[in-house]
Amino acid sequence: MQTAAAVADFRTYPKRCDLAEAQVLEDQIRVRWADGRVSPFHHQWLRDNCPCAQCVYSVTREQVLEIVDVDDDLSAIGARIEHGVLSVEWRGGHRSQYDPGWLRAHAYDDESRAERRAAKPQPQLWDSTFDLPVFDYTAVMEDPKALLQWLLALRDQGLTQVRGVPTEPGSLALIAKRISFIRESNFGVLFNVQSKADADSNAYTAFNLPLHSDLPTRELQPGLQFLHCLVNDADGGESLFVDGFAIANALREEDPEAFRALCEIPVEFRNKDRHSDYRRLAPIIALDALGEVVEIRMANFLRGPFETSVAQMPLLYRAYRRFIAMTREARFRLVKRLNPGELWCFDNRRTLHARNAFDPTSGARHFQGCYIDRDELLSRILVLQR
Amino acid sequence: MQTAAAVADFRTYPKRCDLAEAQVLEDQIRVRWADGRVSPFHHQWLRDNCPCAQCVYSVTREQVLEIVDVDDDLSAIGARIEHGVLSVEWRGGHRSQYDPGWLRAHAYDDESRAERRAAKPQPQLWDSTFDLPVFDYTAVMEDPKALLQWLLALRDQGLTQVRGVPTEPGSLALIAKRISFIRESNFGVLFNVQSKADADSNAYTAFNLPLHSDLPTRELQPGLQFLHCLVNDADGGESLFVDGFAIANALREEDPEAFRALCEIPVEFRNKDRHSDYRRLAPIIALDALGEVVEIRMANFLRGPFETSVAQMPLLYRAYRRFIAMTREARFRLVKRLNPGELWCFDNRRTLHARNAFDPTSGARHFQGCYIDRDELLSRILVLQR
Repeated sequence: MQTAAAVADFRTYPKRCDLAEAQVLEDQIRVRWADGRVSPFHHQWLRDNCPCAQCVYSVTREQVLEIVDVDDDLSAIGARIEHGVLSVEWRGGHRSQYDPGWLRAHAYDDESRAERRAAKPQPQLWDSTFDLPVFDYTAVMEDPKALLQWLLALRDQGLTQVRGVPTEPGSLALIAKRISFIRESNFGVLFNVQSKADADSNAYTAFNLPLHSDLPTRELQPGLQFLHCLVNDADGGESLFVDGFAIANALREEDPEAFRALCEIPVEFRNKDRHSDYRRLAPIIALDALGEVVEIRMANFLRGPFETSVAQMPLLYRAYRRFIAMTREARFRLVKRLNPGELWCFDNRRTLHARNAFDPTSGARHFQGCYIDRDELLSRILVLQR
Repeated sequence: MQTAAAVADFRTYPKRCDLAEAQVLEDQIRVRWADGRVSPFHHQWLRDNCPCAQCVYSVTREQVLEIVDVDDDLSAIGARIEHGVLSVEWRGGHRSQYDPGWLRAHAYDDESRAERRAAKPQPQLWDSTFDLPVFDYTAVMEDPKALLQWLLALRDQGLTQVRGVPTEPGSLALIAKRISFIRESNFGVLFNVQSKADADSNAYTAFNLPLHSDLPTRELQPGLQFLHCLVNDADGGESLFVDGFAIANALREEDPEAFRALCEIPVEFRNKDRHSDYRRLAPIIALDALGEVVEIRMANFLRGPFETSVAQMPLLYRAYRRFIAMTREARFRLVKRLNPGELWCFDNRRTLHARNAFDPTSGARHFQGCYIDRDELLSRILVLQR
């Protein structure tokens, strides 16, 4: 529960610790908490984050104040702990009150920042022995708790299956919309994975497809991919998956030079047909600011010619061949045939997927697919967790 | 026109120069062109890019060959120029033919790469004296050449106006779809910009909005934003624009330390209401691999509390205040009132937009907006240029 002091947010910030003392210094207020932690807050930061009704519009909880309209040498006249809340009086007359739960959750002393970094969800890597998380259609459609469990598995493990899904064409949209709206592409809102004579991608043939991410040809690869099986009477066509983060981390261990090449040398991916022509230049492995693997971009059939210096070209080929060879190693691969009424939902930027060739003369095979972006997944999780 | 040798692409690669000589070395073929340029091509690269019907599926023009299935020490037995085409015979039996137009366009010697880098379109920066590119609705709807001119202005200048647009609600979708499908968001496919009592963003109030990009709270900010005026009888509400790239470059010149802070210190943007909760941590200024400014992320009313070290916080505030102060300088600002039947279309990741407060009691004001991603803009340009 919030105390009397409002916050510019729809989340709640439970009080974890009492405020003990507030001391006004030249450009900051130094707060001491009941557990001994000391958190400095600069005057500019505090004034910027004043949650009063003049500074934040209460309906949208969006800021109206712009900090540039406040003097850059603004200082506090006084700071007190009143009824558990930090109360600050500013030179010039404004007053601000800060909820202790909110203040602790946003403190930027080293200890508080390290604590928040450590609490961030981490990917749980998997290999061929992965215990696939399976969810029930009716449960995720009706029970917000089951929905949240499914979404957390998608976020942290990146590969899930849902069973008991209706097999009418289009029913995929119903479960996708439990998360959010669907991300459209040139292949449509829902795309049909069937062998077609006039295929505009190898995905729409009966060929085997090597392990890949979808739409590496776009600046932002889709976050989630759904593949829903309506009919699967054809011989072959098994689904294959690998955890791209697990492979990238193994490569980093086994061949650091190859790993670095895939992080640093951009590669062009192309998806072109008579009506569209998408091209995107980006490295195959993306790292975050802390050097952790956060994305794999890979589809051999959509790759353009490598373009790097003559000196680097042999290294790039060595690294690329090594990565592809690793995706073929049994230790990483999960192989399963999808049955009607089942769907795969996976992190398209982490979990590479493939299918074996199938024989279109042996029986019908019809999957439907769609995409939802990671923004939508994370937003839905935050709302369910409120 | 292509020669007999096919290419794995729908683009054409006119011949710019004849092949003069091909010499087989240990791991590469050294090609000499008629103009004297020398382009080495590694055996792996050439084999990987073989365009024959066994290696590329002719319907999709996507690769079927995976280079990892070829020996890593594969070498050429012979290379000849035949009827203007580079013809290579590989140890083990495969033969490949390379069109000279395609080969020159993909050569990766230093000179060829520098030539392509120099030919890349550059943003044309503008300020308050900008000669706004204005296009006619009927022309862009009916004439592919006019459409291409509009799209090139969007790509290179980042701010355009279209006039003569019907004022029926929803007609924005017709012109947007001349480019591609629309990018949906939690605000819908088309969003209505009107003052609402239950606003879920300050955009839907009558407040002034400071200069900002839309959806900085998403991993990928929308590439293009459309704002279409249906009714504008209210006092106030003028549109303001600045070229965010021009401001970032001026800041780089005038205060390099502040510029670096905005490139390096990530800031959280938040868009939250009862049903959604988007949060994205990213720097305000993004640079490409060559250090050029390629994106601005900014909306004061959607910004979360700054979170950086205590030591860096004063620098971040100084840099942020300076950037905002620059967006307010007359030298950068373009101010225009939009009339019914006119629309703004602009690069949302470059051109910051704002509106003055308006008086909702003085008359009606109704705009509609939508987004399209940069991928779609660039794809449409490439198809129109084929």
